[in-house]
Amino acid sequence: MQTISIKASTSYEAHIGHGILASCGELVSRISEPCTIAVITDSTVGPLYEETVKISLTEAGFRVVTHSIPSGESSKNLFFYGEILEFLASSKLTRSDLLIALGGGVVGDITGFAAATYLRGIGFIQIPTTFLAAADSSTGGKTAVNLSCGKNLAGAFWPPRAVICDCATFDTLPKDTFADGVAETIKHSLIADKAFFELLMQGHLYSRIEDVVRRDMEIKRDFVSSDEFDRGRRQMLNFGHTIGHAVEMRSGFAITHGHAVAIGMVSAARAAYRLGYSQNDFSSIISEALQRYGLPVESPYRADELIEIASGDKKRSGDHINVIVLSDIGRANSVSLDMTQFESFIQQGVGV
Amino acid sequence: MQTISIKASTSYEAHIGHGILASCGELVSRISEPCTIAVITDSTVGPLYEETVKISLTEAGFRVVTHSIPSGESSKNLFFYGEILEFLASSKLTRSDLLIALGGGVVGDITGFAAATYLRGIGFIQIPTTFLAAADSSTGGKTAVNLSCGKNLAGAFWPPRAVICDCATFDTLPKDTFADGVAETIKHSLIADKAFFELLMQGHLYSRIEDVVRRDMEIKRDFVSSDEFDRGRRQMLNFGHTIGHAVEMRSGFAITHGHAVAIGMVSAARAAYRLGYSQNDFSSIISEALQRYGLPVESPYRADELIEIASGDKKRSGDHINVIVLSDIGRANSVSLDMTQFESFIQQGVGV
Repeated sequence: MQTISIKASTSYEAHIGHGILASCGELVSRISEPCTIAVITDSTVGPLYEETVKISLTEAGFRVVTHSIPSGESSKNLFFYGEILEFLASSKLTRSDLLIALGGGVVGDITGFAAATYLRGIGFIQIPTTFLAAADSSTGGKTAVNLSCGKNLAGAFWPPRAVICDCATFDTLPKDTFADGVAETIKHSLIADKAFFELLMQGHLYSRIEDVVRRDMEIKRDFVSSDEFDRGRRQMLNFGHTIGHAVEMRSGFAITHGHAVAIGMVSAARAAYRLGYSQNDFSSIISEALQRYGLPVESPYRADELIEIASGDKKRSGDHINVIVLSDIGRANSVSLDMTQFESFIQQGVGV
Repeated sequence: MQTISIKASTSYEAHIGHGILASCGELVSRISEPCTIAVITDSTVGPLYEETVKISLTEAGFRVVTHSIPSGESSKNLFFYGEILEFLASSKLTRSDLLIALGGGVVGDITGFAAATYLRGIGFIQIPTTFLAAADSSTGGKTAVNLSCGKNLAGAFWPPRAVICDCATFDTLPKDTFADGVAETIKHSLIADKAFFELLMQGHLYSRIEDVVRRDMEIKRDFVSSDEFDRGRRQMLNFGHTIGHAVEMRSGFAITHGHAVAIGMVSAARAAYRLGYSQNDFSSIISEALQRYGLPVESPYRADELIEIASGDKKRSGDHINVIVLSDIGRANSVSLDMTQFESFIQQGVGV
């Protein structure tokens, strides 16, 4: 097991290992006295891992209650958020109790938002069971649900008290779901670490998965710790996400997050070169890396099908919107575009 | 107009005056560039003051959109919270835009919670139009909605960017609604300022309303600034609220917040004396002050009708619950009770 420290407004540890789900009770007892723990999971993950988690927590002296939501992005909404809150209240959880998010990014985000707002905030622990959640959403402290107008439009900054990542849970992931995490991992390498990108290009991701997750978390930590509330440097993590979110939304979530971000990164690299925001065209080498892991690289939608959705992006501020571009492999920067420039960016990105 | 500074995680100013609603645009322009402002109000307050606010904001260069919820405590729930969020998203508000809560405590609390969570937090301004909201909920930064199990069970700490209190709006309040604010004002005096209590006992509240609101805000500020996230000293503000909340809930909100708190304060003072947590019995003098302003002092419910509801109080932590008692007029302290002691407290408080 590897452990890294993550410093945010509160500090916490992330444990990464193989088969550590069965000892999660011991890991949780390092940060909490015996209390009630509400494990929130979904209809896919619950049958696989809930029992293991529950047994380990119970043996460590915790009282455990569980609640499940239907799996899938369409559950990440205010309805199921409200259902979780009512469950916590009817289970009489107090401020000294804890939540656990056992699942992928949807479960992590909605559970984190419930933790941030139940009794104006109680502690929670992330147990990511997808590579995407491990590599990305389980750290950083962003929690959210979707609104009908767009993804992650309601939420809070609320760091977990601990992250417990058992890479053995990735073994049950469908290939496409695993690939979602690869896209964010490649993104991390592109914005922060050229050597890491080369290692991924060489195909070493599967054989060194624990090291890869650790490096994902370290890179993300380094961006987040200097900018927890997302006013500057943290926005680099948004590389590929502006067009990516629009593709994801336009598909009604049929195109999953990582797949959409893959398309978004290639599109952003192409647009940045064509419009002079990047000196080099990195779109080919990014495409090569992504395709190696079975990820898509071209938008199935035309620019005009994406522009309005993309204009509603959270990163918009008044009349301007920030997009992230690469100055080199391993280095990113932000460009503020007015809405006309932003439309060109999308046109050049997804136009062939 | 009087202005006081309130220091929280962010600092803000509260302006108190007579007829200042018509110049709210100028006051808002002191803290924000021209942007879009979403004014959230309710079906009672909107017809009275929305137009004045809208005109003033528009003249000051702001784009204004408005949204109304049905008036009353029963609107302070996740349904109308979601409706506000969807309204903000469909109005395309960005992080540099603002919300205004124009109304009483319900509008302030639900709008503040929407502001705390829309795009993970945007700025908002409180324009309280009830004495209760002015005296209490508009400052302090607590935002919330009710769940079916209890009041204020979901929410966030999110201070406003400014408070604009026009005491002329109190002129349209029904007598009972005004009295709700008196209860919180008397509470402030009881926990912090004996001279203020004596002034209220002498009946000077109506004639010096601006000064009274300012003193309310100052007392609350002093408790909150040392304990924004409600771990210690701020809990003194909860005097009368544990039994008060239970009475309010038990009545299905037919007994309003201030009226319930009035009952809760007298009950808490009586119980504290009978159980030895207070050296003196302050219940008579508190009753006298409250009755002077038409407030009730006795619970219409028996202890056994309140205990289970009160046990679900947010202030509960594991097996213990904190209640606030007076050591003198103007001085409060917290007592941690186990559940058996807590039941006695309620029995002694509401039993005759």
